[in-house]
Amino acid sequence: MSHNLLKGKRGIIFGALNDMSIAWKVAERAVEEGATITLSNTPIAVRMGQVDALAEKLHAEVIPADATSVEDLETVFSKSVEILGGKVDFVLHSIGMSPNVRKKRTYDDLDYGMLEKTLDISALSFHKMLQVAKKQDAIAEYGSVVALSYVAAQRTFFGYNDMADAKSLLESIARSFGYIYGREKNVRINTISQSPTLTTAGSGVKGMDHLLDFAEKMSPLGNATADECADYCVMMFSDLTRKVTMQNLYHDGGFSSMGMSLRAMNQYSKGLEEYTDENGHIIYG
Amino acid sequence: MSHNLLKGKRGIIFGALNDMSIAWKVAERAVEEGATITLSNTPIAVRMGQVDALAEKLHAEVIPADATSVEDLETVFSKSVEILGGKVDFVLHSIGMSPNVRKKRTYDDLDYGMLEKTLDISALSFHKMLQVAKKQDAIAEYGSVVALSYVAAQRTFFGYNDMADAKSLLESIARSFGYIYGREKNVRINTISQSPTLTTAGSGVKGMDHLLDFAEKMSPLGNATADECADYCVMMFSDLTRKVTMQNLYHDGGFSSMGMSLRAMNQYSKGLEEYTDENGHIIYG
Amino acid sequence: MSHNLLKGKRGIIFGALNDMSIAWKVAERAVEEGATITLSNTPIAVRMGQVDALAEKLHAEVIPADATSVEDLETVFSKSVEILGGKVDFVLHSIGMSPNVRKKRTYDDLDYGMLEKTLDISALSFHKMLQVAKKQDAIAEYGSVVALSYVAAQRTFFGYNDMADAKSLLESIARSFGYIYGREKNVRINTISQSPTLTTAGSGVKGMDHLLDFAEKMSPLGNATADECADYCVMMFSDLTRKVTMQNLYHDGGFSSMGMSLRAMNQYSKGLEEYTDENGHIIYG
Amino acid sequence: MSHNLLKGKRGIIFGALNDMSIAWKVAERAVEEGATITLSNTPIAVRMGQVDALAEKLHAEVIPADATSVEDLETVFSKSVEILGGKVDFVLHSIGMSPNVRKKRTYDDLDYGMLEKTLDISALSFHKMLQVAKKQDAIAEYGSVVALSYVAAQRTFFGYNDMADAKSLLESIARSFGYIYGREKNVRINTISQSPTLTTAGSGVKGMDHLLDFAEKMSPLGNATADECADYCVMMFSDLTRKVTMQNLYHDGGFSSMGMSLRAMNQYSKGLEEYTDENGHIIYG
Repeated sequence: MSHNLLKGKRGIIFGALNDMSIAWKVAERAVEEGATITLSNTPIAVRMGQVDALAEKLHAEVIPADATSVEDLETVFSKSVEILGGKVDFVLHSIGMSPNVRKKRTYDDLDYGMLEKTLDISALSFHKMLQVAKKQDAIAEYGSVVALSYVAAQRTFFGYNDMADAKSLLESIARSFGYIYGREKNVRINTISQSPTLTTAGSGVKGMDHLLDFAEKMSPLGNATADECADYCVMMFSDLTRKVTMQNLYHDGGFSSMGMSLRAMNQYSKGLEEYTDENGHIIYG
Repeated sequence: MSHNLLKGKRGIIFGALNDMSIAWKVAERAVEEGATITLSNTPIAVRMGQVDALAEKLHAEVIPADATSVEDLETVFSKSVEILGGKVDFVLHSIGMSPNVRKKRTYDDLDYGMLEKTLDISALSFHKMLQVAKKQDAIAEYGSVVALSYVAAQRTFFGYNDMADAKSLLESIARSFGYIYGREKNVRINTISQSPTLTTAGSGVKGMDHLLDFAEKMSPLGNATADECADYCVMMFSDLTRKVTMQNLYHDGGFSSMGMSLRAMNQYSKGLEEYTDENGHIIYG
Repeated sequence: MSHNLLKGKRGIIFGALNDMSIAWKVAERAVEEGATITLSNTPIAVRMGQVDALAEKLHAEVIPADATSVEDLETVFSKSVEILGGKVDFVLHSIGMSPNVRKKRTYDDLDYGMLEKTLDISALSFHKMLQVAKKQDAIAEYGSVVALSYVAAQRTFFGYNDMADAKSLLESIARSFGYIYGREKNVRINTISQSPTLTTAGSGVKGMDHLLDFAEKMSPLGNATADECADYCVMMFSDLTRKVTMQNLYHDGGFSSMGMSLRAMNQYSKGLEEYTDENGHIIYG
Repeated sequence: MSHNLLKGKRGIIFGALNDMSIAWKVAERAVEEGATITLSNTPIAVRMGQVDALAEKLHAEVIPADATSVEDLETVFSKSVEILGGKVDFVLHSIGMSPNVRKKRTYDDLDYGMLEKTLDISALSFHKMLQVAKKQDAIAEYGSVVALSYVAAQRTFFGYNDMADAKSLLESIARSFGYIYGREKNVRINTISQSPTLTTAGSGVKGMDHLLDFAEKMSPLGNATADECADYCVMMFSDLTRKVTMQNLYHDGGFSSMGMSLRAMNQYSKGLEEYTDENGHIIYG
């Protein structure tokens, strides 16, 4: 159901790959709420994915770009303003990738060239986006920019590797640039820290099922879905959140404020039972 | 402009006194967005304030109650369900008062009877509200509860006194009860940490002007107004934020993420100039 | 081994019950490091526990007191100054109790008289202690005050109940009073957020074993013991930490900064295996 | 006065330039407490600074190294183990530099080559240090590693520029590596978030005086000095803090927990007076 929350607004959505992507859902919901948008992803993602299908469905244009290239980003913003017929009102950054994770380099055996890439793709691309936009004056007054993050920026999850550092850096950039873009143009910049979500990127990760189960059982409302995340993004793009900036907003069913839930502990204890003595005390191996 | 975000929803607004109150604005906006509501405040506030005028305008009923009285709260919830014709979907807690502040007792000379009152009125009332509601099963599945807080819960502001402790307690209650109400009924519970706002309560405080000026100059977007806060509350009551719970959400123009802004520092420095030597170094007195 | 870190210093230790108590260990270590101390606990704890044995061993006097009674606290401070021959340099607050937990009242069925007691005993006693001390000018310049807390003040643990709210309040009091006592007397006030520890209080709690196991496996350094906590308290009482104040310091083997460890996940997964299909995907019940 | 807290311990101190450097003070205090150390800094800093004088005084060897070079770091660790006669017990990382700040590039006009340098020097060097040390198994069981940080990692300070992002990244690395080094070797890794300090690096910054004055007046205990920071580092290197890891520890006189102090507000208000009307209300320009 549409509430016309983004009626007349223009936006750019970075990172839609296929219908499992959060960015895909955000694009759909934004248009449903009355926005016109452009889509951007890497040339290879555009070729391999279903971005064109989405673009057709939403009457949106696709502008391929490497988000680590200032030049490419300049094209995305200038073209978007041209295509959409005015400055953009909202931007979604849903971009992240770690070559170290892909190549199964552990965190104590990182390749530093790859680490630089992780940070450039997953975090510095956000700064580049904002700097390009500001130099072009491409975002309208009271515009809203959102980047997707994860609670690993605050707490360590085994296996999340250098993506945790990238997310910390991303959230810091949101604050640092939020100050400047806010005071000068009233543009707000926030990150949404989303539940672990089964996207194409995530589905290949070993043990992801178990982590999702843990997060599901820890969170009183369960894990937030990609669809629900899209709703939250729409809200952050709308005029109803004009004074929220430089924040990291948890959209996670309560996970971030949990230490231990009964459901998760019950699950955890199942594996313990065989290791307890007759008094129920754990026998530490 | 209405987006019908709360169409068909029922709510209770605690704490509207007059048209400077945040709760007053929330009531107006909620109705504008399609909700039907009841209003509640203390009997004396109802007599002294303009709650009846608001009620008339919004076609809402007023249910006077002392929010520290479990019995009174039972009446508010049971009557509201009856009047509104079903379980409530949202609740606003905008209640706070410190007898110690009123009586100008400093934080190192608190009256403990008064401290108990501060905590009871400003924080425990929130627990009572939630416990009563849950026992009556008066809040609908996927309902949303918001309490208003202030950044003094995290950082000390001179003169805010025992209200800081009350706000910390309030935010803790939101987390603790959010876990339980979430897992059992999908009800979400959050606090909104609002900019300092000139309400009737605040306007009497000495030095409030200067603090407002500091917050205004520190925040890249300036202080959030009561009207803007009402928008944010509407968003939190709507179905677009269903997976956000146990959070403290800063609605403050960016203040909470600022260490020092250029504008505030310029202001600060004005008072310093006369104390600097010929090299511009500060002469510490 | 002693480092004479507290040589010539005077202190008061609240909350030593028996040799499982953290306060007991702190008392021993403080004396070992050269301090002279007094001990305080409730009259009933003094009668039932082994405080007298500890006092004898440490050549310390016991001053029984109900820590919720301002009058009793006045006695503790004035007597301590008298006995120790000067103002006190450090104070430990290791006091907490919830009648609701004891009576197995769940968090959505709290008795409000009991909640008031939980807060009074576990949190307001800390304010009373500080206010009494400041009025008597009983703490020396650059003195150090520590209260023991738990991460439940930030994140919800099932079953911790209203003690979570009490700990949030306690930590807020540390900040609020830390500002005042700091600016006027250079006294620093901090809380130490300690790993779950098997004390007499904790050992009766059902499921405590499993929670300890989880915390142990989540924390890269394992749970911190009571002995290690005593070392950390000594450090915070010493002159080497004079500029640390208004902080909550995690002493927990890293637990507070963990989202999920491999060891804990392995344990968690054991209970999951039987619920996975042939592809290793979890079958949600 | 020495407490022999580091008796028999071996350490490496990165970043001592001259007697205003925090690292310089830490080196002196560490030796005073019984440690033997090596010193490391960039070749140019070694030539330009007074590191040799410090080395002579402390009977320490200097190992010049570019901390962004894995090869150089390998030399520092292997040589240190050789010179000191065993694995090292503690390491201090006090390294930070932003070419963007030096070249007066504002945060919305960053040079991305320089940004990469800022991150490499100020943050990634920490990861490289840890990875090299772990691969060489050069840090003893229960060793302690500290890096110096600043509150700008959490809150934005105008003019701190891309150093804020570097510090966020640095603190994230401390967590991520702290998990791994902790579980495998019981090595703890923390950051100390220090008050702004007048070092050679800091003294050139325009407006630094005013910021120091603000921090001084905001902090109930005043700004922490370099000497006091050295004391705190010693404590973190000692055996009394063995279960503290993955933490960011504020050593700042309370600044991080302050929203507004009376002293700072009084100063701030001086500049306001001329802008108030006859009722004391501020005239917003």
